[in-house]
Amino acid sequence: MSDRGTDRPGASRRGFLTGAAGVASGAAITAAMSDAVAKAAQPGGQSEPFWGVHQGGIVTPAQRCVYFAAFDLLAVKREDVAALMRSWTSAAARMAAGQSATASSDDGDDPPADSGETLGLAPQRLTITFGFGPGLFVKDGQDRYGLAARRPPALIDLPRFNGDQLAPERTGGDLAIQACADDAQVAFHAVRQLARLADGVAQIRWAQPGFVAGYASGQTPRNLMGFKDGTMNPLTSDPKLMEQFVWVGDEGGWMRGGSYMVARPVRIALEHWDRMKLSFQEQTMGRHKASGAALGATRESDPIDLNAVDHDGNPVIPEYSHVRLGAPALNDGAQILRRSYSYDNGLSFVAERWPPWRQGMEFDAGLLFVCFQRDPRTGFVKIFEKMAKFDMMNQFTTHIGGGLFACPGGAAPGQFVGQRLFEAA
Amino acid sequence: MSDRGTDRPGASRRGFLTGAAGVASGAAITAAMSDAVAKAAQPGGQSEPFWGVHQGGIVTPAQRCVYFAAFDLLAVKREDVAALMRSWTSAAARMAAGQSATASSDDGDDPPADSGETLGLAPQRLTITFGFGPGLFVKDGQDRYGLAARRPPALIDLPRFNGDQLAPERTGGDLAIQACADDAQVAFHAVRQLARLADGVAQIRWAQPGFVAGYASGQTPRNLMGFKDGTMNPLTSDPKLMEQFVWVGDEGGWMRGGSYMVARPVRIALEHWDRMKLSFQEQTMGRHKASGAALGATRESDPIDLNAVDHDGNPVIPEYSHVRLGAPALNDGAQILRRSYSYDNGLSFVAERWPPWRQGMEFDAGLLFVCFQRDPRTGFVKIFEKMAKFDMMNQFTTHIGGGLFACPGGAAPGQFVGQRLFEAA
Repeated sequence: MSDRGTDRPGASRRGFLTGAAGVASGAAITAAMSDAVAKAAQPGGQSEPFWGVHQGGIVTPAQRCVYFAAFDLLAVKREDVAALMRSWTSAAARMAAGQSATASSDDGDDPPADSGETLGLAPQRLTITFGFGPGLFVKDGQDRYGLAARRPPALIDLPRFNGDQLAPERTGGDLAIQACADDAQVAFHAVRQLARLADGVAQIRWAQPGFVAGYASGQTPRNLMGFKDGTMNPLTSDPKLMEQFVWVGDEGGWMRGGSYMVARPVRIALEHWDRMKLSFQEQTMGRHKASGAALGATRESDPIDLNAVDHDGNPVIPEYSHVRLGAPALNDGAQILRRSYSYDNGLSFVAERWPPWRQGMEFDAGLLFVCFQRDPRTGFVKIFEKMAKFDMMNQFTTHIGGGLFACPGGAAPGQFVGQRLFEAA
Repeated sequence: MSDRGTDRPGASRRGFLTGAAGVASGAAITAAMSDAVAKAAQPGGQSEPFWGVHQGGIVTPAQRCVYFAAFDLLAVKREDVAALMRSWTSAAARMAAGQSATASSDDGDDPPADSGETLGLAPQRLTITFGFGPGLFVKDGQDRYGLAARRPPALIDLPRFNGDQLAPERTGGDLAIQACADDAQVAFHAVRQLARLADGVAQIRWAQPGFVAGYASGQTPRNLMGFKDGTMNPLTSDPKLMEQFVWVGDEGGWMRGGSYMVARPVRIALEHWDRMKLSFQEQTMGRHKASGAALGATRESDPIDLNAVDHDGNPVIPEYSHVRLGAPALNDGAQILRRSYSYDNGLSFVAERWPPWRQGMEFDAGLLFVCFQRDPRTGFVKIFEKMAKFDMMNQFTTHIGGGLFACPGGAAPGQFVGQRLFEAA
């Protein structure tokens, strides 16, 4: 067992196994060996790098699953928050490499260091993205950790948007974790371990799992409205676009190399939407449903002609369509990097506000809208203020929670995410 | 477009596309062609047969995702229920083959025949399993559809088990659908279309999505307790075992070739479980966590020695461990085919009944326990009555809903699932 206790990236999830050997003796050793064999044949074997200039999960090609969680800080002292970020960073790096959350010291007389449900599973491209909410800096008017002066101007309190129905139990949070992986169990496992590591320092406040359908590479996925979602994104392969729209620059101080994340669960009245005729759905989106092309265009990738009019002189892309309201050309060039997931929470009780005005259990499903940007004031807020008022889609969508989080730059091995904030203050 | 309107198995999801062509004209045609090209390169291209002696989703190797839904019947007449089963059968067969739910007649002035979010997606091994609850036969003492006399004796009202905390809003149902696929969007899409087809005839009552981690073929998956789950299943590759334990025989009348499905969401107190030491977890399960081997054994596949004692004379596999209580040898040979999924509904408020007695948001997650059997009286009820009283695992698990459903045999093309019940009565 030459790999015992290794911490190197690419090592398999063996920390748990080798630790368990003390109890399980021969059985664990055999399992560890067969685990290594099994893992080699495993789907999802690729891992995403954790350490780097930027955090993962931002320009990383979207994985299939997300588990998003926000936490309230319980800590009294700044050092305790910094220690949490140090332990979270270490655990995140280990898990991204397919290892257990912490170097195991299981001897049977302690709770296992890792809950174990990813034992034998490949890394599944796990990324973990940490974010800081406004409450880390000021909470109820208190500068709890002496960090108020270092709150970035871009980390605003989001305004109340038209139509917002934000439920306190899924809104806000002092810290946020976006765990993405190609396997739901791997994403959930990551947050579960991190929540445990936060014991006494931070308490989980709200969480939302999500998924995106498994389209072939290069295809734009469809969301639950049946339309392609994300076509308008700036190209993540273009570093200049990313510098311009996604990564915080020199203006950001400790946030340099980071990005601002807006995460908002948006419930979609699927039963209502499904009763709309196809032409109305397409007018609402401003796109053809089948192809994803803008109205008047043929291919998804065709440029959007916002000036085109039909023979009656009406705009081909309706004035209050989703695609027009979000178009950079009509938002002073504003662009955000959308990285949303669908969500599906089963059913909940709904009193319909549309014909036939039924009351009963309906799908509690929609979109976990996630976007990243260099500055939310010129990104999400700029675009969404108008959308919230005028978008025809608002008849079917309701923002029910969420928040804005400052995601610092990435960490180098030995450092932790957010270190520049905590140590320079 | 030689495949226009085809209904043949293996045809791609083009019903929607070709139908949309009337509105989207050139765009849809181009999209349909590129869809065909894209689909050829698509992961998840395999489909499971829909038509057959047995319904799919029972001995089918478990897919990655489930969407389970139960419905209340609103219909007054038996014919309307039969018509629903006919339309559900047709839609299920189409979707299992990767097509839209109904043959499309989209002309822009009607709601789309299919909500469209699987357009361009492969079939992803979708199976749809239909079940009948006791309420189809007798509801509130009423024989609504003249079927009471044909209620199978095996379709009992499940007894109240020790520890049950069944919430009415996720318990029961006159009809049930288990949709399984290797993609969450495909499974949810299926139930969404079927719910729409039920408009006015049946209303969705409760639903639970679930997942299982993507282990390599042949590996037993781990559930959220971190232990391997399903090791004890009878081999689905052995037709004799399936006839003995899973498929209803001649005793079943119209149920011949069917199976009885128990589906119960079981919440797991993960925060509590994670605080237990490894040795206690292993004593509770009666298995080693790492290897999945029974205590005292080395490999997962090793036989379970229920008689082994340690040098103090205590049983190696504790008396009230999960594996002992479920062992066929101690249940008069009873066996069930477990086909469970993990579930993860985010968080909900919990007042802990264990140290440190916290109150707050905790993981609303656990197991959607699903099993199939020839007769629940000698299957689930036989095994679970004892487990519900004595299983050490009950400290961490709570059955919060679910039901028992009679899943008829499969249908041949032109027939519908349950036809023998409706037409012979």
